[in-house]
Amino acid sequence: MRKLLSIFLVFPGLLVAQKQALTTFVNPFIGTQNAGHTYPGATVPFGSVQLSPDTDTIPMLVNGQYQKDVYRYCAGYQYEDSTIVGFSHTHFSGTGHSDLGDILIMPSNGAIQWNPGTESHPEKGYRSTFQHVNEHATPGLYSVFLDEPKVQVKLTTTDRVGIHKYQFSTSKDNHVMLDLTHGIYNYSDKNVWCFVRMENDTLLTGYRQTNGWGRTRTVYFAISFSKPVKNYGFKNVKPSSYNGFWRIFDVENNFPEAAGEGLKAAFSFGNESMVMIKVALSPVSIDGALLNLKSECPHWNFDAYAKDAESRWNEALNMIQADFITPEEKTTFYTSLYHTLLGPTLYMDVDGQYKGLDQRIHRADGFTNYTTFSLWDTYRAQHPFLNLMVPKTNADMIQSMLAHYDQSVHHMLPVWSHYANENWCMIGYHSVSVIADAMVKNNPGFDYKRAFEASVTTSNQRQYQGIAAYLDYHYVPENLSGNSVSKTLEYAYDDWCIAQMSNKLGLDTFSQIYVKRAQSFEQQFDPKIGFMRPRLSDGSFKKEFDVLSTHGQGFIEGNAWNYSLYVPQDPKRLMEMMGGEKRFIEHLDSLFTMSLPDKYFAETEDIMRDGIIGNYVHGNEPSHHVPYLYNYTSQPWKTQSCTRMILPKQYKAKPDGLGGNDDCGQMSAWYVFSSLGFYPVAPGSPNYALTSPSVTHAILHFADGKQLEIKTKKQSAQNVYIQSVTLNGVPLELPQITHSQITGGGILEITLGPKPNKTLFRP
Amino acid sequence: MRKLLSIFLVFPGLLVAQKQALTTFVNPFIGTQNAGHTYPGATVPFGSVQLSPDTDTIPMLVNGQYQKDVYRYCAGYQYEDSTIVGFSHTHFSGTGHSDLGDILIMPSNGAIQWNPGTESHPEKGYRSTFQHVNEHATPGLYSVFLDEPKVQVKLTTTDRVGIHKYQFSTSKDNHVMLDLTHGIYNYSDKNVWCFVRMENDTLLTGYRQTNGWGRTRTVYFAISFSKPVKNYGFKNVKPSSYNGFWRIFDVENNFPEAAGEGLKAAFSFGNESMVMIKVALSPVSIDGALLNLKSECPHWNFDAYAKDAESRWNEALNMIQADFITPEEKTTFYTSLYHTLLGPTLYMDVDGQYKGLDQRIHRADGFTNYTTFSLWDTYRAQHPFLNLMVPKTNADMIQSMLAHYDQSVHHMLPVWSHYANENWCMIGYHSVSVIADAMVKNNPGFDYKRAFEASVTTSNQRQYQGIAAYLDYHYVPENLSGNSVSKTLEYAYDDWCIAQMSNKLGLDTFSQIYVKRAQSFEQQFDPKIGFMRPRLSDGSFKKEFDVLSTHGQGFIEGNAWNYSLYVPQDPKRLMEMMGGEKRFIEHLDSLFTMSLPDKYFAETEDIMRDGIIGNYVHGNEPSHHVPYLYNYTSQPWKTQSCTRMILPKQYKAKPDGLGGNDDCGQMSAWYVFSSLGFYPVAPGSPNYALTSPSVTHAILHFADGKQLEIKTKKQSAQNVYIQSVTLNGVPLELPQITHSQITGGGILEITLGPKPNKTLFRP
Repeated sequence: MRKLLSIFLVFPGLLVAQKQALTTFVNPFIGTQNAGHTYPGATVPFGSVQLSPDTDTIPMLVNGQYQKDVYRYCAGYQYEDSTIVGFSHTHFSGTGHSDLGDILIMPSNGAIQWNPGTESHPEKGYRSTFQHVNEHATPGLYSVFLDEPKVQVKLTTTDRVGIHKYQFSTSKDNHVMLDLTHGIYNYSDKNVWCFVRMENDTLLTGYRQTNGWGRTRTVYFAISFSKPVKNYGFKNVKPSSYNGFWRIFDVENNFPEAAGEGLKAAFSFGNESMVMIKVALSPVSIDGALLNLKSECPHWNFDAYAKDAESRWNEALNMIQADFITPEEKTTFYTSLYHTLLGPTLYMDVDGQYKGLDQRIHRADGFTNYTTFSLWDTYRAQHPFLNLMVPKTNADMIQSMLAHYDQSVHHMLPVWSHYANENWCMIGYHSVSVIADAMVKNNPGFDYKRAFEASVTTSNQRQYQGIAAYLDYHYVPENLSGNSVSKTLEYAYDDWCIAQMSNKLGLDTFSQIYVKRAQSFEQQFDPKIGFMRPRLSDGSFKKEFDVLSTHGQGFIEGNAWNYSLYVPQDPKRLMEMMGGEKRFIEHLDSLFTMSLPDKYFAETEDIMRDGIIGNYVHGNEPSHHVPYLYNYTSQPWKTQSCTRMILPKQYKAKPDGLGGNDDCGQMSAWYVFSSLGFYPVAPGSPNYALTSPSVTHAILHFADGKQLEIKTKKQSAQNVYIQSVTLNGVPLELPQITHSQITGGGILEITLGPKPNKTLFRP
Repeated sequence: MRKLLSIFLVFPGLLVAQKQALTTFVNPFIGTQNAGHTYPGATVPFGSVQLSPDTDTIPMLVNGQYQKDVYRYCAGYQYEDSTIVGFSHTHFSGTGHSDLGDILIMPSNGAIQWNPGTESHPEKGYRSTFQHVNEHATPGLYSVFLDEPKVQVKLTTTDRVGIHKYQFSTSKDNHVMLDLTHGIYNYSDKNVWCFVRMENDTLLTGYRQTNGWGRTRTVYFAISFSKPVKNYGFKNVKPSSYNGFWRIFDVENNFPEAAGEGLKAAFSFGNESMVMIKVALSPVSIDGALLNLKSECPHWNFDAYAKDAESRWNEALNMIQADFITPEEKTTFYTSLYHTLLGPTLYMDVDGQYKGLDQRIHRADGFTNYTTFSLWDTYRAQHPFLNLMVPKTNADMIQSMLAHYDQSVHHMLPVWSHYANENWCMIGYHSVSVIADAMVKNNPGFDYKRAFEASVTTSNQRQYQGIAAYLDYHYVPENLSGNSVSKTLEYAYDDWCIAQMSNKLGLDTFSQIYVKRAQSFEQQFDPKIGFMRPRLSDGSFKKEFDVLSTHGQGFIEGNAWNYSLYVPQDPKRLMEMMGGEKRFIEHLDSLFTMSLPDKYFAETEDIMRDGIIGNYVHGNEPSHHVPYLYNYTSQPWKTQSCTRMILPKQYKAKPDGLGGNDDCGQMSAWYVFSSLGFYPVAPGSPNYALTSPSVTHAILHFADGKQLEIKTKKQSAQNVYIQSVTLNGVPLELPQITHSQITGGGILEITLGPKPNKTLFRP
C-alpha cells in the first residue's frame, strides 16, 4: 500500500493521464462587460460561495433618483469600471435581475473610512482604483492589486467558504472593513437586520437578513481571521429609536456585539502585513456556518485551497475534451462550459441542513440541495446539458425542486427561486420540462411518480399567472392576464412535457388531458396574418398589433416574429398552421435576414444591439431553438449555416463577448451544445437536433464511463455544411440524434464542406 | 386498577382533600390601574403565554410627538380605558419599561377595518368599547363582552398556547383580525419583519421579528382556527420598494403567504357564530410552535383548558394556605402570591429547544429554560421566595442564567434579560445574589462551582457600567460613571454574595478578595453629613448635593436618604458609620415620618404619590429591606409596626391597589413575606428578619412535603406588636429566623398585642 502510494506521488499524472489542463482555456472575464452579467471572481462548480469583486455598490437615492444604472450591476462587476468597492461572497451569474452581494470585505490602510466613496472620488471612501493589468482570474482563483491601500488580493473558495489573502505593502495601520449594508439590488432599502458577535480575537459570527428580490433571505456567516484582531469597532448606520446599549457602552470600540439594520465593522491588524480571512456561509444558522468552516477549511494554506478549487474545475471541464480551429473558439467553448457549470448552486450545510421555501429548517435526505433556479432560461439547454453530462447532479436539482414543491404553500414547483424564496420572475412552469427531460432520458435519480404529481398540481394552480383563464378558455386572454400569448405558448409546451411524463408512467388518462392542453398554442394563431396574436376573452384577436414590437403585444422578451415560432414540441403542426413548408421557411429566413427598424432596438430587454441578428434575438431565450427549426423542413442545411454563423457572432472571447445576459448558463449551454453539433429543441423529447459542429474533435466523458468521440473532417470556418454523418460507422438518416445514441457512446464522424449536401437527410 | 380509578372519579376531592379553592381570592385587576403595570389576562404559573387585552396600541407619532403616554402601557392594559384594541399573547407583569404585546387578535363584525381606531373614535377601527361590569378575570381565565362587534370573548392558556373563544351575536360577516404591527413599546418603529403562511383553511403559521427593548427578538407562531376560514387577506402596511408578488398576484384575497415589515390579516368566518382560536408560540421556529400546539392543545374543549389552567393555579396557590382578619387582606395576599408566581417565564419548546442569547438554538439539557429576569428587582424577595417555596423551579432559573452566561459574548450573567436578549436595564450584577442565596440555602438543583465561576467572571467585566473604575478606585467615581453611589453600594452587596459562595465552597482566597470588595460601601459614606455621597475620581465628594433629590445625585430610583441605608449585608457597620444606634434609628424614623417637599414627588420614577410614605419610597425597590433594619437595633418593635403599617397602605384589593410597578413580582413578594412575618433582608444570608405577621393562620407547604404552620394569637389591626414568639414551643431569642428553621417545619406561634414588648429579643 505504501509502495503504491509513493508511485502515485511520483507520477500523479498517471492517475489523470487523460486529463488536460483545461482551466487555462477559461476566461472568467468573458461576459463581464455590458449585458453578459457574469462575474470574474472565484467559485467551485455549483458552489455556494461566489467570491467576487463588486465595482459598484447599492444605488444611492438622491432627490428621488437612483444615481446608478443598477441593472448593470446584477453580478456586481462591470469591466469598464475603474474602482473596486470590495469583495462580496454571493453572486448570480448572468441574470437580468439583481440580488445577493452578501458580506462585503475590503482591506484598507490608514485612517478608517466607513463609507465606500464614489467611483469619481474613491479617496473619499474605502474603495480603491485598480488596473486590469494587475487583475487575473482563472477558475477558482481571482487576484488583483488595489492601488490605494496597496494591497495584493487573492481570492479562492471551497463549496461554502470564501478565502481571502491580503498582502499589505505597508506595515502600519492595516485594517479590514466589513460592510453589511452593501448589497446588490435595485433599491437601497434592502437590509432588514444584521447581528454580529466577536466571539474571540480571530472569530466573528453573525447574519444578515435582507428583503431584496428574495423577499425573506438570511445569510449566516462565520468569519475567521488568520491573525488576531488588535482593535475593532461596529457602526450602526441606521440606528433605531431605542438604543439602550449605545447609551451605556462604548459600542464602537472593542464592544463585542452589535445588531441593527445597517451594520459596518472595521478590524485593525496594526503592523501585520499579511492577513488571511475565511468566510463561511450557511443558509441555516451560525452553527451551520461554523460547521462549514471547520469541515471545509481546517488550515491556512491559501495556495492549497486555490489548487483544490482549480483541480475541481479541471476535473469538471474535462468532462468534454474539445479542440477547435482557433484558440478563441476553445476559450469561448471552455468559458461557456465553465459558465454552464456555475449553477444552480449548492444550498445546504455540510450536515445536510438547509432553509426551505417555508422558511423552516430541513435536512436533505438522500440528495444534495441546490438553489437559484432561473428556470424560464435554463430549462431550454442548461438543464438538458446537466442531465446529459452530470445526471446525478441534475437529479439532485430535481429533488431540490420537489422539496421546494413540498414546502410551497402554493403547491407549486419552482418558477424562479433562490435562497429559500420564490421570486415569481418570468412565466411558465418550466420545472416540468426539466423533470420530463430527465424522465424521458431515464435519469434514475428521483421519484418519477412524486415528480409527476408535483407537475400536475403545479399546472393546475389557478392563482398563478393566467392559469385559471388558460384552463377555462384554452388560451390566456390578454385582457385577463398580460403577456398572454407567451403564456399560452409556454404552458402548451409545458403541458406537452407533462404528457410525456404521463406516457412514461403509462397514465393514459393524463396523457389525453395534457396532449389536449399541449395543443393550446393553436388557439393563439391568427391565420389571417400568419402570426401568433393575442386574443381577448370574447375570442377576438387584439386589434392594434405590431408583430415587431416586444412591448404590450402579448409577449415577454420577444416579439411576435420570434415568439410565433415557439412550438418546440410540434414544429410540424406549426409549419402546417403557417401555411406549409415554403411559407414557414420564408418566415425563418426573414427572421435572420430582415432589417429591424431602429426604434425596436431601444425597447429590446436585457441585451445589447449585437445580441440581435436581423430580427432574431439570440440575447434573449425564446428563440434559442429557432435556428434548429430548419431541421424539420427539407432544408436542414440552413440550421447548419445558421448555428455556425451565430456561434462566433454572439460569443466572443473578450469581456463584452456576450450579446445578452448569460442567464445562469443558458446562453453558454447553447454554445456548448451547438459547438458539439446537437441541441435539445424540445426538452422532454429523447431527440436532439443535429447541426454542424464547430469542434475539430471532441470526447464527451459520460458519468457511467462511456464516451462519445466526435470527429470532424475538413473542419473550417467556411466548411459549415455537413456532407455526411455516421455514428459508429452507420449513417444517420435524419438530422437528429437520440439521447441513447449519444450516451451509448462510440464515434460520431462528420464530414464538412463549403456547400450544402442537399441529398443528406432526405427520406 | 379500574376500581381504584373509578373511586378517584367519584371522589376526586379525596386526592386533594387539603386543597382550598384559592383562585377565588385572586383579583387579576389589582395593579392594572396607574403604575402597577400588571395585566388582567390569562396565563399559567411561569407560563410562556400571557394572553391579555391591550387597551391601547403602539404610540402614534404625530408631528414628532408621541400621542400616548406609552409608559402607562407597559402591560398593555389600563383600567381606566374604555376600549380594547385586541388580545395579544405576551406581557410583562409590573415592569417599568415596555416591550412584547405580540400577535394581537381581535374578533370583528361587518366591514373589515384594518386599523385599530382611537379611544375617542373606536368606530373608526377594529377596537371596541367594553364595560368592566362585563369583564371578569380569575387565574387562567379572562372574559369580556365587546360592545361593538357584540362578541363574548373568553381567553385561557396552556404553558405555550393562548386559547380564544369568540361567541358572536350575529350570524353574518363575522371575522377575526390579526395585527402583527401591534406591539407594546415606546417607539412605533419596532417591527423588523413578519412572515405568514396560510397552510390550510384552519392553520396559519409565521413569525414576527421586532427591535424593541429586546433588540433582536422573534416570536414564531402557529394559529389554529376551530372553523374553516372562508376568506382571508393579508395587508402589508409598510411595503418595501420591490414587491414582485404584489404585482403578479391578488395578494390581499386568499393569497396564502405574505412577508413584510408591517403585516395585518383578516379572516372571515361568514355566518359562523362561534370561533375558537389556538395560538401556539415558540422562541425557536414554526416547527416548534406546531409541536407546542399539538402537544399541549389536542382538543377544542375550551372549558377543559380553562379548568386545567385554574387547577394549576389552585395547586400553586395552595403552597401557602393563609387566613386573615379581612377578606381584603386575603385577596391582596393571594393576588400578591399570584403575581409572585407569574415569572420568570418558561422559554423553550416542549422538546427543550430554545433560542439563546447568542441567537443560536440550544437544547435545555436537564433543566427548564426561563426568561424575563428583572434581577435588579427580583433578587430582593421574589427569587428568595421561589427559592424557599419552589426550589427546583428557582434552580432551573439559575440554570437558565448560567446558560445565558455561557452564551454571553461578554461572559456575564444576566442583568435584565428577556427573550434571548440582554437589555442592560438598571445596575448591579444581582444574578450573583440569586445564586448565593440558593447556595447558602443548600438548593441542590445546579452546579455550584460553575455558578461561582460565572459570578466571579461577571463581577470583573470591566466594560460593564463602571466596573473598571470600581475595581481601580474601590468605588465608582461619579465623573466616570453616573449613578455612581448606587453602583458602588450594590456592587458591594453583590461582592458580599460572592464571598458567601466562596465560603460555601471553601475558597478562602476568593473569600478574602470579595469580603474586601464588599466593604466598598464605606468609601461612599460622607461622615460629615451622615449620608452616602458621590465621589469624584480625585477622591473628593461631589460639591452640590441634595439628599432628597433622585436626579443627578449619584443614585438611581432613590435619593440619598433612602439609598444611604443600602448595606443589607452589614447593617451593624452601617449603624456604626452613621454614628451609632441612636442616630441610625433617628435616620430610620425620619424616613417614615418626614414630610417630603412637593417638588420631589414630581421627579420620583415609576411610582404614584401614594407609593411614598414620608420619604420612604416603597414603590421603588432600593428601600424594601429598610423597614426591617430596626431589627438590628434595640427597637425591633418598630419593624413590626412599620411593616404592618406598609402592608395595608401600599397594597389594596382594587385596580389601583399598587403604589408602584409590581416589577415582575418583587413588590408582591414583599407583601407575601411580610404578611407571613419574615423577610430576606440580605439574600445570600440564611437568615430572615422577623416581623409581625398579618395572617391569623397560615400553612407553608414545602416541596419536600414538610410544612410550617404559622399561628397568631390576638391578631388584629391594632395588635401589631409581637408579645412572644416560639418555634415548636421554643422561644426565638433574636428577631430573626433561619432558612433551616423555616423549612424544618413545625409550628411558629406568635402572640400579638397593641403595645411593644420591649423586653423581647433582648440578650
